[in-house]
This record gives sequence, structure tokens and C-alpha cells, in this order.
Amino acid sequence: MTAGRGAFVTFEGIDGSGKSTQARLLAEALRGSGREVVLTREPGGSPGAEEIRRLVLEGDPERWSAETEILLFTAARRDHLERTIEPALAAGRTVICDRFADSTRMYQGLSRGDLRALVDQLHALMIGREPDLTVLIDMDPEVGLARAKGRRGTEERFEDFGPDLQRRMRAGFLALAGEFPARFRVIDGARPVEAVAADVLATVRAAL
Amino acid sequence: MTAGRGAFVTFEGIDGSGKSTQARLLAEALRGSGREVVLTREPGGSPGAEEIRRLVLEGDPERWSAETEILLFTAARRDHLERTIEPALAAGRTVICDRFADSTRMYQGLSRGDLRALVDQLHALMIGREPDLTVLIDMDPEVGLARAKGRRGTEERFEDFGPDLQRRMRAGFLALAGEFPARFRVIDGARPVEAVAADVLATVRAAL
Repeated sequence: MTAGRGAFVTFEGIDGSGKSTQARLLAEALRGSGREVVLTREPGGSPGAEEIRRLVLEGDPERWSAETEILLFTAARRDHLERTIEPALAAGRTVICDRFADSTRMYQGLSRGDLRALVDQLHALMIGREPDLTVLIDMDPEVGLARAKGRRGTEERFEDFGPDLQRRMRAGFLALAGEFPARFRVIDGARPVEAVAADVLATVRAAL
Repeated sequence: MTAGRGAFVTFEGIDGSGKSTQARLLAEALRGSGREVVLTREPGGSPGAEEIRRLVLEGDPERWSAETEILLFTAARRDHLERTIEPALAAGRTVICDRFADSTRMYQGLSRGDLRALVDQLHALMIGREPDLTVLIDMDPEVGLARAKGRRGTEERFEDFGPDLQRRMRAGFLALAGEFPARFRVIDGARPVEAVAADVLATVRAAL
């Protein structure tokens, strides 16, 4: 990081891994130590991106092709980056984001055909930025899926794809951590929330 | 055209050039001579793309950055292509589309910064297809703008950019016709509707 510029931290993991809770707890801990923190999420995170999020996540799982979905997620990410993330980083704030481009690499790149190369080309063309640090909350898929189904809602498109996808996602996220070791940190999420949170905080403090 | 496959004809031109009317009249004329015709438009043309269209065209002109707008238009185009255009062409129908990728090349590529290269790269990556024939209805911008303002509606984002933009658009469309001479035909739109329609029909019949 250059002086004055904030750090960009993302959380990744399968559904039900506890990453949203951990993102929130990290934000609270860093605020408690005097940092200015912007806690945000994808898809969404800016008014325009939230509208695109609704368009993508609600309705029939076959509503959009994988390619159209990638374009919509990338449009939402571009808006989120321009309107929320970049201004906060420029103002010296720490940005903590629940999911970012790695989720697209996994969910669209792995779940429906081998679209990973397309996702990467589109990212290079329209987004460009990677996080300074990515915390992967690793979790057994059976546990994660049970947790995700516990939260009922209208946004069930991805959970609907089932446990086999979740297993491939877990393997995919771990492979991604191996692909980008400089920015990835893998945290075991199958422990009490407080223990995971302490680990996350120590890891982030050491890295930034 | 290969046997059995339909022809893909697009109409382009500045706002108020009369291209929507001419697209409709061409569809009627071709249907009258026994062709199966699908008349469609962009942005929109499929249920998903129409939803994206609403997101892009309504509201504040500064609501989306040029880059986000290009991504949303490309997402709508991908959906339109998959759900409406390609199935119709595969079934041997003639597809007539009011605006296609050339409009994005002009409106986004010219109106806000030099984004033409980005538009072309994104098109190559996510769309790929060009029309078999593109009819450019050429029109004096003062005449076109007066016509466009005569139609009141909520979708005024582009007309709001004013007459200077319309002049650059006209020049841009003519330059594009020069860049792709094999598929472009330029028709003078500043004549009675029937005369223009007769010219369009003769041109399309000769080309296909």
C-alpha cells in the first residue's frame, strides 16, 4: 500500500461458510481500533449495483445464460468499484467486501461450463483491480449448505445448484488461493465464530 | 447466407432519423411477399433484455458511467441474441433489428471519451456476431432532433445530450459505413416516408 491509500480486503468462501459474519466482525474490530472502515458486499454495494443484483439473483435459475450473468455481475462490479470502493480507498478508508471477482471466477467460471478464461478476460478488460488481501473462509460443504438453507429468502439461485456444486466450489476456492498466494489467506471456518474471528483479525493485521 | 438460415438485417441512424418506422415498413413488405419476419429492437428485444433496457434508459443521464453502460448494453445484447435473434435465424426467419452493436459503437464509443476500442473488444469477447446487412438511414441532425423531441417519453437520456452530439453521431455513422462497406447501405432519410421505404426494400432485396 502507498501511504494515505486504504486497504482493500475481500472475503470469499462457499455459501454458509460464515464469511459475511466474519466480514462484519472484522469491520467492528478494526473500527474499534480507530480505523475508518467501509463494509460492503457483492453483487451489490452501490445503488445501481443493488438494482443489477436484484435482476440477477431473483427468479428462475435458468433465467440468464452463464455469459449474460457474467456480464451483469461485471456491470454491477464496475459500478460498485467506481461509486463505493475506489472513493473510499482514495480517502484512506479500509474497504471490506463480502465477495468480489473471485466469486465470479468460481460460480460462473466453474458452475456452468469452462467459462473461467472468459471471466478472466472480461475482468482484465473492464475491472482490472484485485484486492490487497483476500480471506478465504474454508468450510466443509455439508456444513456450509445446511447453514445456507437455514437462512430462507428469495435469493436462493445459487444454493439451488446443490451439494455437488458446493464441493466443487470449495475445491475451486482452494485452488484459487494456490493460484494467487500473495493475496490469499485461508482460514478454517469450522470452529466457533469467535475463534475464527480472532484468527481473521490476526491474519489481516499481519498482512496489512 | 447458407441455405435454410435466415438473414439478419439491422437499422441504424441518429434519433429521429425514421429508422424505426422504416424497420417496421420493411418487415411489413417482406411479410407481404411471404417471408417469415421477426421485427425486434435494441436495447431490448427479449424479456430479460427489456428489463436491462429499463435499467439503462430511465433516470439521471449520469446514473451509470460509460463503462458500466457498455456492460449493461452488452448483457442485454447477449440475452437478445440468445433468446430471440439466433433461434429465429436458425429457423430460417428474417430478423430485422432496430439498432444493434453499431449503435453502441457510436453512442458509447463516441459520446463519452474514446471508448470505441473498449466497445470493440467487449463485442469480440461476448457477442461476436455482425449483421448480414445494415441499413443506415442518414438524416440531417437538426431535422432528426426535432423529430425525436416530438415523441415525448421517459426514455430521453440520449436525446438530452443535445444537437452537437447528434452531429458527431451522424458523422460517426457515416464513417462506420465506410469502415464496413460490405454490410452497410446508406439511405437518404430526408425524403417522404414512402420514398425512403421503397429505396430500403429495393436495397435489401438486392443485397439478400
